[in-house]
Amino acid sequence: MRVMGVDPGLTRCGVAVVEGRPGVRPTLVAVGVVRTSPGLPHEFRLLRLEEGLTAWYDRYRPGTISIERVFAQHNLHSVAGVAQAVGIAMLIGARHDTPVELHSPSEAKAAITGSGQADKKQVGAMVARILGLDGPPRPVDAADAVALAVTQLWRGGVENRYAQAVAARRRAS
Amino acid sequence: MRVMGVDPGLTRCGVAVVEGRPGVRPTLVAVGVVRTSPGLPHEFRLLRLEEGLTAWYDRYRPGTISIERVFAQHNLHSVAGVAQAVGIAMLIGARHDTPVELHSPSEAKAAITGSGQADKKQVGAMVARILGLDGPPRPVDAADAVALAVTQLWRGGVENRYAQAVAARRRAS
Repeated sequence: MRVMGVDPGLTRCGVAVVEGRPGVRPTLVAVGVVRTSPGLPHEFRLLRLEEGLTAWYDRYRPGTISIERVFAQHNLHSVAGVAQAVGIAMLIGARHDTPVELHSPSEAKAAITGSGQADKKQVGAMVARILGLDGPPRPVDAADAVALAVTQLWRGGVENRYAQAVAARRRAS
Repeated sequence: MRVMGVDPGLTRCGVAVVEGRPGVRPTLVAVGVVRTSPGLPHEFRLLRLEEGLTAWYDRYRPGTISIERVFAQHNLHSVAGVAQAVGIAMLIGARHDTPVELHSPSEAKAAITGSGQADKKQVGAMVARILGLDGPPRPVDAADAVALAVTQLWRGGVENRYAQAVAARRRAS
């Protein structure tokens, strides 16, 4: 199973592709960030993010997409941008009939470190350890994307259950 | 000048196409809503909204798009959905190099009725009067989309200034 993890954002959107299955050490296929310039008009930032994430999708063809669920921790302006980044990643999944799942930050932290209260440094260190890397992926958005992908990978079976539910709902609509 | 107004939402997204120029009675070309079922998985709602708005865009080829600016008046879940609907309308503009502008609800109310505190009924009545309709467009999301389109139409020159700014920023990026 190949999972694309997305840590949504406009300035730096973390992206990671991880391969594996529950109970086995996962393999990091690729990790990085899609950046859009804060100086661009907002709609062109959205367009560039869509182009960037689509390029990742087309290159790695993941079987599922794992996205961080957004909460209103910061000001509304950034929440709107992050919600739109989540929406773009979801759209790419829907367009390709690729199951999409959202995971809260604490779900991802708990899956990776065993504690939902782990800090970024602990998550990065565990991500490196799990994948056998020399150090945590940089920047932190990239490490978070890896954590999201591994979280989904380790919740084995989710993909199938989800795909079944989506197919059932689509038939009903 | 032809403007597409969008009152963003997932369950009912108001859309209107209005033609005219500053100081002249505008003409209503088309008005309606794009609906997505709350029973669908979220990512398919986003995809259907994108398909619906793209169909409107392709059919009417507006010169600019006018979208309601979102504020956190309601719960965060609906704000995220509305922010994503705004993002989709913006993406369609960016893809076609069609200028996009956001207007707050009070800007649109003030432009249409002369008062930023006007209620929905007053806005609907004035929209009908301005366009020479028998009554306000229904549902209210459709009337709001007309108000947003007229607001942008009457702020003549915005299109050109905006297009110039966008072009300058794109060259610089």
